[in-house]
Amino acid sequence: MDLALRRSIFFPSAEIYGDSFSGFWDYGFYGTAIKNKIIEAWRKDLVEKEEFVEIDGAQILPEKVFVASGHLENFNDPLVQCIKCHSLHRADSLLGEEFELTEGTPTERFDELIQKQKIKCPKCKGNLGKTKKFNLMMATDIGATGKLKGYLRPETCQNIFLNFSRIYKTMRKNLPFGIAQTGKCFRNEIAPRNSILRIREINQMEIEVFFNPDKINEIENFKEVEDFPVRVLLNKKKSIEEIKAKDLVAKKLVSGKLVAYYLAKLQNFYEGIGIPRDKLRFREVDEEERAFYAIEGWDFEVETSLGWIELVANNYRSDYDLKNHEKVSGTNLKLKEEEKEFTPHVFEISAGVDRSLHVLLELALREETKKGENRLYLSLSPKIAPFIAGIFPLVNKEGLDIKARKIYDNLLEHKLNVFFDVKGSIGKRYARVDEIGTSFAITFDFDSLKDNSVTLRERDSTTQKRVLIDSLPELLWKLSTQKTTFTQIK
Amino acid sequence: MDLALRRSIFFPSAEIYGDSFSGFWDYGFYGTAIKNKIIEAWRKDLVEKEEFVEIDGAQILPEKVFVASGHLENFNDPLVQCIKCHSLHRADSLLGEEFELTEGTPTERFDELIQKQKIKCPKCKGNLGKTKKFNLMMATDIGATGKLKGYLRPETCQNIFLNFSRIYKTMRKNLPFGIAQTGKCFRNEIAPRNSILRIREINQMEIEVFFNPDKINEIENFKEVEDFPVRVLLNKKKSIEEIKAKDLVAKKLVSGKLVAYYLAKLQNFYEGIGIPRDKLRFREVDEEERAFYAIEGWDFEVETSLGWIELVANNYRSDYDLKNHEKVSGTNLKLKEEEKEFTPHVFEISAGVDRSLHVLLELALREETKKGENRLYLSLSPKIAPFIAGIFPLVNKEGLDIKARKIYDNLLEHKLNVFFDVKGSIGKRYARVDEIGTSFAITFDFDSLKDNSVTLRERDSTTQKRVLIDSLPELLWKLSTQKTTFTQIK
Repeated sequence: MDLALRRSIFFPSAEIYGDSFSGFWDYGFYGTAIKNKIIEAWRKDLVEKEEFVEIDGAQILPEKVFVASGHLENFNDPLVQCIKCHSLHRADSLLGEEFELTEGTPTERFDELIQKQKIKCPKCKGNLGKTKKFNLMMATDIGATGKLKGYLRPETCQNIFLNFSRIYKTMRKNLPFGIAQTGKCFRNEIAPRNSILRIREINQMEIEVFFNPDKINEIENFKEVEDFPVRVLLNKKKSIEEIKAKDLVAKKLVSGKLVAYYLAKLQNFYEGIGIPRDKLRFREVDEEERAFYAIEGWDFEVETSLGWIELVANNYRSDYDLKNHEKVSGTNLKLKEEEKEFTPHVFEISAGVDRSLHVLLELALREETKKGENRLYLSLSPKIAPFIAGIFPLVNKEGLDIKARKIYDNLLEHKLNVFFDVKGSIGKRYARVDEIGTSFAITFDFDSLKDNSVTLRERDSTTQKRVLIDSLPELLWKLSTQKTTFTQIK
Repeated sequence: MDLALRRSIFFPSAEIYGDSFSGFWDYGFYGTAIKNKIIEAWRKDLVEKEEFVEIDGAQILPEKVFVASGHLENFNDPLVQCIKCHSLHRADSLLGEEFELTEGTPTERFDELIQKQKIKCPKCKGNLGKTKKFNLMMATDIGATGKLKGYLRPETCQNIFLNFSRIYKTMRKNLPFGIAQTGKCFRNEIAPRNSILRIREINQMEIEVFFNPDKINEIENFKEVEDFPVRVLLNKKKSIEEIKAKDLVAKKLVSGKLVAYYLAKLQNFYEGIGIPRDKLRFREVDEEERAFYAIEGWDFEVETSLGWIELVANNYRSDYDLKNHEKVSGTNLKLKEEEKEFTPHVFEISAGVDRSLHVLLELALREETKKGENRLYLSLSPKIAPFIAGIFPLVNKEGLDIKARKIYDNLLEHKLNVFFDVKGSIGKRYARVDEIGTSFAITFDFDSLKDNSVTLRERDSTTQKRVLIDSLPELLWKLSTQKTTFTQIK
């Protein structure tokens, strides 16, 4: 957090107006770059390579959408107010985890437990009032009549369900067929906390895979993942197991090959951008705890200093969404395959961008002392580093700056994420790029004028190599896609 | 519009629920891709090359922000309601353009004109009530108390002003220094219309350049643009003139070199992505018509079938925003240069993504008849084409599909926007990529198995060339950045 605030990676929104408006965070230069890199990596690995289709829909949707989706009725947190000091609290948080309280627990059960456990207001020790359901959606009036209500979407997936039929027809794809979307969603959390981990304005990247439930085991590329060791924590079990994707299917631990396939792909993606295998797991979500729309759930979690944190909710949503939108809208959303009409089922991979970023930064943070000097750096994978390289003229004069600037322009043209910095000593500039996780530093010095080469410095090892300027675009591309490593450069 | 809807480039949001909820639009696969390409081109040309800093802030901001910005008081449209049928209308739209009505016109003036001109309800011919100010911001409750109000930002720039001091300190940059942001903003339009041209949920890409007003003429790279012919329509003039950037300054048509520099850069950017010079202009916005925060304004407009459409508002906002945020928040936002304390001035380049996309598509649309066959295609610049190429196996069997798929995977790894399609005859697939503006089609046929080459077909000319598979990454990169043209390929 200290690093995040000091380097403006992320920081509280509107902070000059104080902290009364909690749960909203902004990304600065480096945070924006890292966030964009995470989304790009997700797009390539889980959307483009799967030949899925990405859309970008409105964040505000009409009330009927959430009547159909069930959010207006079910997307609630239990709220209690102190009779004495009027402060508001989440009833489930006050009671703790031992009572197995879930989304479905009736408010009377909370009142009963609060009474029995003699729970008082944590602020003033006053008595608590009755538990109420508090809907987490944010509403706003649309138009000037005051009669049309819109809601900020509480999850990005509703646009996907609404557009499924249109996109399916336009794109002439076969099932299984995935639609992806990245963007913001909004939840009026009663108590936002832990910086960007529990917030009110959330960046998501979601994929909904539509399939024929009779063909949940007909996955063309299953061979690719069949031996992939999926790390799972099964319901009621105490320890994590590594189970091959094919065995998850054979042992009926998942509903079918399709589920095992995407769990394996997702784990592979997160390992690829820097989560060590021994820090991750899919936790099986039992019936009581599952979201109201899910018939099977696997939370992808990562172990951090704050405990296990959920980055991705993987839910088998069945035909829940399409059936309900069909009912409320009166539009036919069924498909036909081999003369049989059916409503497609949906498997959802719903990832939190903010949480992924937070966890990736925490796991990448290194502190070391070398020759009595402290060094802080972010050992980020080149796939998600904010920049593959910083370009530095040794001094900001004698033509070095102009020549170095030309390298910068050329690398930008090659779609490489680079930035330019002329300020301060080279040592200070190195320290700064290390702290924000930039993979390499390129220094243009006086020798460069003669030998057309620059110094390429690797962040983690701090070792340096001399490379030809002309080789930089290809070399940096290979380094950023991990087709080559720094040690392999001769 | 027919093409946009038929190919799901963009379409009304939540359309299965009917059209009562107007002003919200979704982007499908192709629209999302084009939108992302426009943003990428903007980022490279106007942000990264200028060494500006991009941030990504919260869309919901506390009320005080808009007290300070003036939006709570001034961001209004004049609203009248029909006494008979209760329909709502914008008073200025009913009256038409001849009366020079602006943001500052008092409501009494509208009432007076409506009376005098005998304006009736356009729906039922009933009498109209009194004009009211209708605030265009969308509000929502934050937290569970019901006492904390947030507003969806009506322009993306407020985050930039709020964060200026923090970002300036963290990034250790000199003035002039630009902060950029792309994202959504929200305006509760009384009468949304013209598909994605006048909407309630808007995609913007904004740059705010902060500078020392005493140094508005100290622009390091002004030489780059001094002879660039900026197309302007001056206040009270009837015809467009091309005036060199340096002459805009010399003739005092702009406040200083800084303004001329960014107008030139902006025009150059839009020309580069496909707006012909003879279709564009900067219209000088006179005092009456300017937004309440601006002391100089240039609307960048493009001529279309719907008339001249504003794509970018360029406003010299002076120290209006920082001064007001300083006053309301109590935070010092001043800087010091050469012992002199001052509040930086701001020049804003606020571009609409949706409008840019709409206009670029319209200008790219071509219809031609060749050998009795009709062909429809989008002649988009490779810089903003949704894909640089579609990859097609001639048939979906005999290994052609697998080999073609490998080319696709390899091009994705090279960060090239490509897509894969196996469905339908090659002719039909060509027609489909033409319609969505994909620059090239790559066909893997039976000969490809022997000669390691594929057919590369150019969209506009429909001519084909045989190229080596191994040359594709480099070749497509050169074509996408316009470092080479199709005709130059031997």
